Amino acid sequence: MSSEMKEKCGVFGVFNHPKAADLTYYGLHALQHRGQESAGIVASDGKAFRHHRGMGLVTQVFSRDTLDKLVGNMAIGHVRYSTSGQSLLENAQPLVFKYSEGGLAVAHNGNLVNARVERDVLQQQGSIFQTTTDTEIIAHLIARSSKKHFDKAAPDILNRIDGSFALLIMTEKQMLIALDRHGLRPLSLGRIGDAIVAASETCALNAIDATFWRDVEPGEWLLIDEHGMKTGRFAPKSEKSLCSFEFVYFARADSIIHGRSVLTIRKELGQILAKEHPVQADVVVAVPDSSIPAAIGYAQESGIPYEVGLIKNPYVGRSFIEPTQELRELAVRLKLSTVEEILTGKNVVLVDDSIVRGTTSKRIVQLLRQAGAKEVHVRISSPMVKNPCFYGVDMPTKEELFANRHEKEHEMGKAIGADSLAFLSTEGLLKAVDVNLAETSNRCIACFSGAYPTKLYLN
Amino acid sequence: MSSEMKEKCGVFGVFNHPKAADLTYYGLHALQHRGQESAGIVASDGKAFRHHRGMGLVTQVFSRDTLDKLVGNMAIGHVRYSTSGQSLLENAQPLVFKYSEGGLAVAHNGNLVNARVERDVLQQQGSIFQTTTDTEIIAHLIARSSKKHFDKAAPDILNRIDGSFALLIMTEKQMLIALDRHGLRPLSLGRIGDAIVAASETCALNAIDATFWRDVEPGEWLLIDEHGMKTGRFAPKSEKSLCSFEFVYFARADSIIHGRSVLTIRKELGQILAKEHPVQADVVVAVPDSSIPAAIGYAQESGIPYEVGLIKNPYVGRSFIEPTQELRELAVRLKLSTVEEILTGKNVVLVDDSIVRGTTSKRIVQLLRQAGAKEVHVRISSPMVKNPCFYGVDMPTKEELFANRHEKEHEMGKAIGADSLAFLSTEGLLKAVDVNLAETSNRCIACFSGAYPTKLYLN
Amino acid sequence: MSSEMKEKCGVFGVFNHPKAADLTYYGLHALQHRGQESAGIVASDGKAFRHHRGMGLVTQVFSRDTLDKLVGNMAIGHVRYSTSGQSLLENAQPLVFKYSEGGLAVAHNGNLVNARVERDVLQQQGSIFQTTTDTEIIAHLIARSSKKHFDKAAPDILNRIDGSFALLIMTEKQMLIALDRHGLRPLSLGRIGDAIVAASETCALNAIDATFWRDVEPGEWLLIDEHGMKTGRFAPKSEKSLCSFEFVYFARADSIIHGRSVLTIRKELGQILAKEHPVQADVVVAVPDSSIPAAIGYAQESGIPYEVGLIKNPYVGRSFIEPTQELRELAVRLKLSTVEEILTGKNVVLVDDSIVRGTTSKRIVQLLRQAGAKEVHVRISSPMVKNPCFYGVDMPTKEELFANRHEKEHEMGKAIGADSLAFLSTEGLLKAVDVNLAETSNRCIACFSGAYPTKLYLN
Amino acid sequence: MSSEMKEKCGVFGVFNHPKAADLTYYGLHALQHRGQESAGIVASDGKAFRHHRGMGLVTQVFSRDTLDKLVGNMAIGHVRYSTSGQSLLENAQPLVFKYSEGGLAVAHNGNLVNARVERDVLQQQGSIFQTTTDTEIIAHLIARSSKKHFDKAAPDILNRIDGSFALLIMTEKQMLIALDRHGLRPLSLGRIGDAIVAASETCALNAIDATFWRDVEPGEWLLIDEHGMKTGRFAPKSEKSLCSFEFVYFARADSIIHGRSVLTIRKELGQILAKEHPVQADVVVAVPDSSIPAAIGYAQESGIPYEVGLIKNPYVGRSFIEPTQELRELAVRLKLSTVEEILTGKNVVLVDDSIVRGTTSKRIVQLLRQAGAKEVHVRISSPMVKNPCFYGVDMPTKEELFANRHEKEHEMGKAIGADSLAFLSTEGLLKAVDVNLAETSNRCIACFSGAYPTKLYLN
Repeated sequence: MSSEMKEKCGVFGVFNHPKAADLTYYGLHALQHRGQESAGIVASDGKAFRHHRGMGLVTQVFSRDTLDKLVGNMAIGHVRYSTSGQSLLENAQPLVFKYSEGGLAVAHNGNLVNARVERDVLQQQGSIFQTTTDTEIIAHLIARSSKKHFDKAAPDILNRIDGSFALLIMTEKQMLIALDRHGLRPLSLGRIGDAIVAASETCALNAIDATFWRDVEPGEWLLIDEHGMKTGRFAPKSEKSLCSFEFVYFARADSIIHGRSVLTIRKELGQILAKEHPVQADVVVAVPDSSIPAAIGYAQESGIPYEVGLIKNPYVGRSFIEPTQELRELAVRLKLSTVEEILTGKNVVLVDDSIVRGTTSKRIVQLLRQAGAKEVHVRISSPMVKNPCFYGVDMPTKEELFANRHEKEHEMGKAIGADSLAFLSTEGLLKAVDVNLAETSNRCIACFSGAYPTKLYLN
Repeated sequence: MSSEMKEKCGVFGVFNHPKAADLTYYGLHALQHRGQESAGIVASDGKAFRHHRGMGLVTQVFSRDTLDKLVGNMAIGHVRYSTSGQSLLENAQPLVFKYSEGGLAVAHNGNLVNARVERDVLQQQGSIFQTTTDTEIIAHLIARSSKKHFDKAAPDILNRIDGSFALLIMTEKQMLIALDRHGLRPLSLGRIGDAIVAASETCALNAIDATFWRDVEPGEWLLIDEHGMKTGRFAPKSEKSLCSFEFVYFARADSIIHGRSVLTIRKELGQILAKEHPVQADVVVAVPDSSIPAAIGYAQESGIPYEVGLIKNPYVGRSFIEPTQELRELAVRLKLSTVEEILTGKNVVLVDDSIVRGTTSKRIVQLLRQAGAKEVHVRISSPMVKNPCFYGVDMPTKEELFANRHEKEHEMGKAIGADSLAFLSTEGLLKAVDVNLAETSNRCIACFSGAYPTKLYLN
Repeated sequence: MSSEMKEKCGVFGVFNHPKAADLTYYGLHALQHRGQESAGIVASDGKAFRHHRGMGLVTQVFSRDTLDKLVGNMAIGHVRYSTSGQSLLENAQPLVFKYSEGGLAVAHNGNLVNARVERDVLQQQGSIFQTTTDTEIIAHLIARSSKKHFDKAAPDILNRIDGSFALLIMTEKQMLIALDRHGLRPLSLGRIGDAIVAASETCALNAIDATFWRDVEPGEWLLIDEHGMKTGRFAPKSEKSLCSFEFVYFARADSIIHGRSVLTIRKELGQILAKEHPVQADVVVAVPDSSIPAAIGYAQESGIPYEVGLIKNPYVGRSFIEPTQELRELAVRLKLSTVEEILTGKNVVLVDDSIVRGTTSKRIVQLLRQAGAKEVHVRISSPMVKNPCFYGVDMPTKEELFANRHEKEHEMGKAIGADSLAFLSTEGLLKAVDVNLAETSNRCIACFSGAYPTKLYLN
Repeated sequence: MSSEMKEKCGVFGVFNHPKAADLTYYGLHALQHRGQESAGIVASDGKAFRHHRGMGLVTQVFSRDTLDKLVGNMAIGHVRYSTSGQSLLENAQPLVFKYSEGGLAVAHNGNLVNARVERDVLQQQGSIFQTTTDTEIIAHLIARSSKKHFDKAAPDILNRIDGSFALLIMTEKQMLIALDRHGLRPLSLGRIGDAIVAASETCALNAIDATFWRDVEPGEWLLIDEHGMKTGRFAPKSEKSLCSFEFVYFARADSIIHGRSVLTIRKELGQILAKEHPVQADVVVAVPDSSIPAAIGYAQESGIPYEVGLIKNPYVGRSFIEPTQELRELAVRLKLSTVEEILTGKNVVLVDDSIVRGTTSKRIVQLLRQAGAKEVHVRISSPMVKNPCFYGVDMPTKEELFANRHEKEHEMGKAIGADSLAFLSTEGLLKAVDVNLAETSNRCIACFSGAYPTKLYLN
């Protein structure tokens, strides 16, 4: 139940479609799982920007009215989640600027590890910042570039920024699409009619019935304008180090990443998990919704029937009133409920995609016991999360991580009240996400292994 | 995909709990699937009512502030869906009145078939109505009763109303719980500490960690006040004619109705469906979310693997901007997406819980084909819906019903583009919902069979 | 500064105009000073009602959209102020009901002194109430009338209600206009093209450019429908006992009541005040805005120049954040400010229209002193308020009234820090409001004299 | 009725007061007449900024909650009006930035005439802009200054900007107060306890009960921090060229500018007007509210009585629904109403403070005629407005100005339907605003005379 690890953003862009803003609205809607705190769209008719941003879900931020004002045949959009305290409208993306050549709009998924350094340099040179996001740095670098035009300047500055970035940048007439040299975040391209579409995940391409074209390569940029498309590299071709948590939890199950369906990979994670950590049981139950495919995989591999033993209340959202002290023990019950007839007297395999803090896992195990489960064997379809992410994922501190507070799996199981607890091995994870084991670096597994693909800067 | 048939209401009440309004909030939240248009709570501290009602979801209508004002140790609440045109705040329940003995609050799930007749009689006697709901009639009848006190008057008037009603009525000191003589709507009782709880479904009892006590009997009433509880009957004990669509679609899967888990019944519907209408196929796929248990049942019975081939976008809600004419064909895509790797080249059994208009079914079949499905065999886990419901379910007109626009299953399959289409038999349905086949009347199957358990009045 | 006495309502109605709801919006807007808490309009196209009500100012409650939905060529509207605790949307008028003959909408300015009695009778007969307003009684009486049709029943029940009422009642096809037998509240008629208009004050007729026709007579009713207009009486012609506070404070200065301009009467109150209570001074200053005409009258009569010495901040409204404890002493300053150059070293006559609690007067005198005024002589253009109003004006309790907490004018002056304080005599008041002194009852002066024109019922 | 000329902003700042944000709220509330479109406050506790900005009135933008979050003992605030099309939240002030030395907040009343030039220079140097306001330039100049610290850099850059500016700039620890070299906008200083206050007008000092200290000098700056206050000049002492329209219309009547009460000056404008353009008449009537003092002055000088003949509806605001085509002729009536008893059969002197477009004047004259006025003599207490303002006042284009569409006063009178029309002379204006006529440049009268005190840049 990785709702304790949060992907921070999704990006979407369209070039050359009369309903660019509408498509972007639907694209962002399909990417809503990547960020629920703010949403924004900037459109251009070749002459001027129109933009609208707001706090909340895509459906809350936009109305037919606001959408109708976003005229033009190109648009970029963004959905964002952010840690509390920085939850400001000013930080909502796409950021919009004016510079010497006109307008500049930036939508960014990821995190720049050299943000602090570059920000200091820019401020020493007299730059002023209006947001607390690292994304604003990108606009400053373009504006200060020695290269004269956007089509030269924008690709040029990509070497100055390090870390993770799936990036859409727009002027009134041009759009730049770029991905960091490690390919830490997903970014795919599609076509619909004569239009080009870029999206964090293919599920957004499907939503608007665009045809998948290809993924953006690590270190690659594409520049599109009325004259056509140019592509280039700001970094040599390298192995892809896409965040493996995209496969485990972040991406929508119907997305295809690097040619593979996320849902199928999750099933496979469950299958490998079943092989690595078999157990005698009556039913396999998933923590909904994200762990359902892994649970089905576990069930198919083990031959134990998959059943719906836990149901999620779909109406729990942002404005839900959490129970006060007197009713505190209801907290989990109000979000998840059990199906007793499935669970009573049964030995249950509970499949979850990850354990971050462990508190929720403990409560779910307790819920299953109250529903009559005889034994509860927890199986996690990813390795232990032990290290912080510097590439744009919101996580608890290292000290708060469950895996760092307990030494052995045996103790861990006890800690959450389970009869047994087992995690997928890193090898198992990498096997499922389909890479040559000789080159483990070509998925980012830093949160499991501590091996970071980029330099880390002191902050 | 019975989102085209809508249950109209859910009710919830608590007697003798210091946090009565908070529990009602959580109870209604668990019943939210029964009505998303308005929500309301009336609480009493034994002396006066406090109430709050509003349009929207429970989480939108109530804030910590409004909830804190609802002091008192008894409360009743209501969630409501209504047909367009009548979507007025005035109609939001619980309705609150003043009459000769003080305050009167009424929460009602169901529909009175003799509403028109009684309303005419009351108006002829000089009554005035402020709402367009049939529920207001109940308050008038109590106020005009020849019986002197609420505890006599309220049970007395239950004979005057016909149709379906799961009813909670409250004065400042007393609460009446009653169910229509046919038991057309579900209504269960629970206990939490010294408090009594009544709820449309047991999932609401679970949400607040109350213990299930028993179902209310058809024709039964219960009156609770500080002196204790009295029960009685306004109609002789009869067979239960609970709406069978509660099992098929309306009720939440984790609820228990008449002693049986809804989820298990749905699985069984799928199992019987597999026996009645087997087919050679590679995968069983559900229309999410409501048809998942039936699909699992079909899969287990048939031995064909259950897979997640369709995914529902959880962020589609009330304020979603529907695509304009140019993008109309995206309508289904934006709500449901396919997992190609599961579907491509496969013979697919698509399990849905019902077909009402047929338009959505057609679009889903098309979606599966676009995702590469070779054959699509649609299996419906309920009989054909051919007749209107007069007991509180919102449905299209008889002419709009899919089953009335096509004569044979063969033609019907063609109409939705499927390779085959089959419906569960009424016998199959009744078998799953666990009744003696000799007495088919003890589930209401009027929408399938046309045999209505009550007199119908001309409107 | 009578903002401590509050008129509770304004009513407006139009019959036979294609833009009936729009005119009602503008009419209510002109009557906004009579009630700022809620507003509502009911329109009819001869077949059905459309209505919209809400909390707040007319401009906050209605949008172009909501107004456009109120189709039909007849409409009635209402603005309302109410005492706290009863500030519920349910109480917002016009109230709308369904009864045996169809729809019934009621807009009422005033207060029924026999409300409690009639309510008890109605409840004993089985009536239920949804609001806490006395207005609902009127609808019940009509619905229960032995007379068969609205045109008979509505005039008939007017004898059953006592107290003050300027009343507009509408069915889908007919409109009844009526005024209580004492004429305690103002109600005027106008014409615009072929349409008839009724309004609490003529300023609302002027706003829509209607021609003043005549005032409604005490005890008179008018019934308008497509066949024309009928008039009648439910009580014999009596002297008019219109609330004299309408002249002093409630009515808008540009209204004409009983043939006289309110502004001119206020000037005359000031002139008589100057004759009754002359004083040597340098400037005459008004408490804005309501006392400006009286101050000008005082100045013209006394020959002392009228100056703008106090200015009101026009932006103080409902959502103004009152100063917290640390800044409490700013409370008056934030609403009223002084012009030092006008006041410094001057002997000032401060003209106010009334003293209710006295606290505000005290603060204003202090403000003038801080601005350098040498002497402050307070002159009040109405007699001392000593008695509660039972006819629809919101006032403090008898004990809180300034005039009941101090015995002599001399002490009163001291209490508010003034060098002298004097009130207009009752004779002076009646002279200005233009009545034969032999018949003092033909203005209601109950709040000054304690002589109430109606029977008072025990509540 | 100069509501057709709009002052664009008001500023307010407090240093060293525990309730700095609260005082700023009340100060802005007193300056609300200077800008109704957006409001904002930035507070600092010496370490970090907290800020809140929003569209609408001060009372709409702030709640007790938002105000309570603005902790710290220093704060600056801003109210803003802007021309349509640029009405964006991003442009709401104070603007807040991060630069090399920390935070920077800027509140600016006025308009930089060299904005375009400086913006181009800055953009060529690689600066990016997030707003469309000229105010952002100020922050860029400070950030790029060669002087090292804020206390050196901020005063240093004031020479780079030309035009009008009353300026408050804040870091986490320091506050800079500055006024352009011509003193085109008003800016006053006050003290309250140990705190220093700066405000666009003294009415804001009075509102919070601060003592007036002195006006800021043209070309002067003040820097305040925990070590005390420093002052200096960025331009030599020059004559004051304060906008004379501040006296005529913009400033609140109770403010004191350059030692003179605005109300008294307005009275004097009326008195001089009476001497310059006498007329035989029965009553003097003002266009409320801004022209009331001039009308009183005209009345006192001429001996013709001042009367309230026009009344303004206080409830006309932003959300007022303007009449549609069918009811268009009501437009003025809904905002202004006449008192017939004052006007009928009278020769009326109508005093207004200015004529900008002339359309409103025409409608008011017509209103007076409909109310029975025999003759209407319009007297304007300012000269003809013939030239655009480049210093922050929103005006129609030169071609739309009434004075440029008609050649002679005689024709102008006809154009608005008046029996006569006369404007105050420029000499009369300058005499009232108390300057040595030998140096006419020491009030800005550019909109009357066309002589601009600064260089004008081509835009």
